[in-house]
Formats: sequence, structure tokens, C-alpha cells
Amino acid sequence: MSTTTEKAPLNGVDVPTLFGTRDAVKHTNEIAEFQFRATNTWVSGTHSRSTFADFHGAMQEMRHENETVVESDHPAVLVGTDVGPTPVEYLLHAIAACLTSGIANIAAARGVRLTHVSSSVTGDIDLLGILGLSDQVRNGYEKIRVSFEIKGDAPPEKLRQIVEQSRARSAVYDVLRNGVPVEITVNAA
Amino acid sequence: MSTTTEKAPLNGVDVPTLFGTRDAVKHTNEIAEFQFRATNTWVSGTHSRSTFADFHGAMQEMRHENETVVESDHPAVLVGTDVGPTPVEYLLHAIAACLTSGIANIAAARGVRLTHVSSSVTGDIDLLGILGLSDQVRNGYEKIRVSFEIKGDAPPEKLRQIVEQSRARSAVYDVLRNGVPVEITVNAA
Repeated sequence: MSTTTEKAPLNGVDVPTLFGTRDAVKHTNEIAEFQFRATNTWVSGTHSRSTFADFHGAMQEMRHENETVVESDHPAVLVGTDVGPTPVEYLLHAIAACLTSGIANIAAARGVRLTHVSSSVTGDIDLLGILGLSDQVRNGYEKIRVSFEIKGDAPPEKLRQIVEQSRARSAVYDVLRNGVPVEITVNAA
Repeated sequence: MSTTTEKAPLNGVDVPTLFGTRDAVKHTNEIAEFQFRATNTWVSGTHSRSTFADFHGAMQEMRHENETVVESDHPAVLVGTDVGPTPVEYLLHAIAACLTSGIANIAAARGVRLTHVSSSVTGDIDLLGILGLSDQVRNGYEKIRVSFEIKGDAPPEKLRQIVEQSRARSAVYDVLRNGVPVEITVNAA
């Protein structure tokens, strides 16, 4: 009975379906092969626009319920028109959102009811790198810091373990921490 | 005279200001020390929301002209409510937008007028990793591919060199390719 209770929907997570999906993937590994996609169009200057629409997963072509469009630009101090956040700021959203979705799933799977999860993310970057003014400075962030506030019906130590397990299984954390091969091809005319 | 012509505004890029900013940073390196920020709040299940508002740079606290709010979720097939793109999809936007803003800047600095820049980005991920079903599969993307279409008043080879120089000075490319230290702290109650 206690197992059934722990697997009931919690934190907005449909835990039975979550476990069912994991079992289906365990049986048919190909279900787990996903490809995510974005298309981007240059608008003017440092301003560009991306659309998220379709993806591949569970052995089929799929579409999001709604397309999402996001803008990027540089602020005026970096000679842009500040129509949207910089590209590097989206990395900060990605790590916070990935860890947070994992926290909700893992807490639900462990029978912990969460009442609050929020985070502040900072990324320190020295632009001497991308401006080509120093060989000693990398182009990207030197460090990213994620600071969580988490509350729920479990002792602080158990809540911290949930965050740690989310980190250990986070796709974005893995990419940002360990890097990923990036292949760029160009059709120029 | 030809130098003046090449530095005139082009591609929506204020080239004189771009060079002026670089010169100012060369003189006072501290101008280049930036910190970007995002705050994220859990909504329900895998759905969370980030806000981009302020940042530090050019030796002062700064704010974007407008706050931007973005949503992340998992699609239904991954037991979410599909309110927005997944966290990993935002990484694809970030690399496309970063390379594209660099392309516009570099082309302008080289006196090349662009008429079209677009890109498609894909990220392949095997969810056996984050589902904890295989020790052989990483959590994150196995590979990211960026495919550019670029047109302008320069030969294809010169356009390709502009893309290559953007890659060589891209903050997001560096982070995704080479990784970055990520520190996570937790305040649990």
C-alpha cells in the first residue's frame, strides 16, 4: 500500500506514467532515441529569432502542441538593439529548467511533496576572449553558479539529495560540464 | 577612404561603435568583465519559467530594456504538459543565435553585406542515459549539428570564412564544445 501511495501523482508529475514510460523504454530501447531541433533566422545586426516546432522521439516524428519563438540580441552596451536576451543567457535558463524538472520528477518518484523550487543562475564571462584581446581568456563562461531554494515535506537533507540526483541525471548539466561535439556545415551562395 | 567605407554601418551593425567598444575595452580591461543572470521558478511537474532582467557589465549594474520570460516543459511523450520547449532545446537556440550574431558583426567589420543567414540545429540524445537505464550512455546530447545558409555580396569562400571566424570567437560554441565549471548550491527548508 505504501508503494502505491508513493507512486500516486505528486508535484504535478504523473508518476505512474513516468514509471510506465521508463519500463517501455527498458523493453524497447529505440523509444529513447530523440532528436531535438531549432531553426534560426537572422533579423538584423545581432538580432536573430529561433523557432521550436518538431522533434523526433519514441520512433516517430512529433510536434510540440504549440510552436515557440524566441529572440536573441545583444544589449546596447554590446552594440546590439536589446530586443531579447543574449545567446549565453539562454544557457542559464537551460540549466535551471533542466535541474528543476528533474527535481520535480525525482521528488514525486520518492514520494516527496514540494511546495517551492526556485533558482538564480549566474554566468561570469570576460569578453576579452570573444573580442580577441587576450589569448589567455576563453570565449565562453568561466563559471556558472546555480543557487536553489527548495521547500517541501521532507527534511532538508532529503531535499538536498533530490537536487543532487537531478544533477546526476541532468542532460543540460552534462552538456555544459563536459561539452559535446558540435558540427557546423555551411551552404554559402 | 576605403577604410572609412568598410567601417560604415552595415548589416544593421554599428561598426564604428563596435570598433570603439573594442578600443575602450583594450584600454580598460575591466569593462569586459560581465555577469549574465537568470532566475527560474518551478510551476508544476516539468514546467518552469525563467526571467532575464539584469546583468553586470562595463563596470556597472545594468538592465535589459525589457524583461524576457521563457517557459520550459517536457512534451507529453516525456510525461510533461508541453507548455514550452524542453531545456535542451534552448541550447540549440543559443548556439544558432550566438554564431549568427557573430556572423553579422564579422561580416560588417569586413565590409560584407549579408542578405540572408539562417540555420537549422539538431541535437541527438539517447534518453537511456537520463532514465538511468544504461551506464554506457551519457545524459546529454551525443552530437549537435548546425547547418547554415548564408548569402551576401561576397564569394562563397569568403562567406564560409566569416562563419568560421564566428565559430572561433563564439562564447556558446566554446561552452558547448569544451564545457564549463558549474557550481550548484542548495538552500533547503
